[in-house]
Amino acid sequence: MEGATIKEERKIVVAVDESKESMYALSWCLSNLVSHSSKNTLVLLYVKPPPVYSSYDAAGYMFYSDAVVALKKYGTDMVNSVMERTDAIIRNYGTNINVERITGSGDAKDVICSTVGKLEADTLVMGSHGYGFFKRALLGSVSDYCAKNVKCPVVIVKHPEDK
Amino acid sequence: MEGATIKEERKIVVAVDESKESMYALSWCLSNLVSHSSKNTLVLLYVKPPPVYSSYDAAGYMFYSDAVVALKKYGTDMVNSVMERTDAIIRNYGTNINVERITGSGDAKDVICSTVGKLEADTLVMGSHGYGFFKRALLGSVSDYCAKNVKCPVVIVKHPEDK
Repeated sequence: MEGATIKEERKIVVAVDESKESMYALSWCLSNLVSHSSKNTLVLLYVKPPPVYSSYDAAGYMFYSDAVVALKKYGTDMVNSVMERTDAIIRNYGTNINVERITGSGDAKDVICSTVGKLEADTLVMGSHGYGFFKRALLGSVSDYCAKNVKCPVVIVKHPEDK
Repeated sequence: MEGATIKEERKIVVAVDESKESMYALSWCLSNLVSHSSKNTLVLLYVKPPPVYSSYDAAGYMFYSDAVVALKKYGTDMVNSVMERTDAIIRNYGTNINVERITGSGDAKDVICSTVGKLEADTLVMGSHGYGFFKRALLGSVSDYCAKNVKCPVVIVKHPEDK
């Protein structure tokens, strides 16, 4: 037979962040990719940006410990906020899918690609931020990079408002 | 509610050509995207390259009519061959999905994007050829272009042997 084999258990990674685009991508995934007849594991991957300063840097960049604590708390609050939004979306679909949550730290595109590889994921789903020319040139495109560098199928989902 | 609405009827365009990558993308689509509980229409889109020479070109490029006929027949044979392979794959999945076949002509990336737009497709599925650096630089990447330019979610499927 020509083609792919049907796999009963699938691991789908959805890269989530605080953007509406990534929440829409999660919804799309639940509506279109998650099958009720197969066993699926949904892995929600949130990547925190790498810490630029630390309290152990050279004296010129040393932070007061209060500021370090505040920054860490902000990061944790952000993760919790994003994961709570994902929980609400998953509940809304009424599916009893197995959900895992992973928080990484570093350059989003590198962390996403390495996590997908380590997990041997079957599919990666990402929101496309639909940046304009200048922002794309400046920031690069995480979804472009991942589409080229991960081994599994990649779904790039645009938010209807970005069309 | 945050997220996408659940749509009962979906139109999924799969860009097919003579490559094993596109046949694998079709199989992936049937295994992962086509739901038995929803009404789906699968649109198989084959794009023939534009004719470079025609019998009406300047004298230096004029073809004998036999050669023109042979080229046209080759193009038709290729379309039939690709569509027969897709039929075999779809039969293998035993699904009674509604299938439409469209043959376009021109630059693949432009024809794919314009067809997806005209059909108001819900998803575009494409195989990724996994070209190396030089071939990619020379030919460009149809999937990259389409991922940036179509409005609907795009799935880029790599063949396992290209990994």
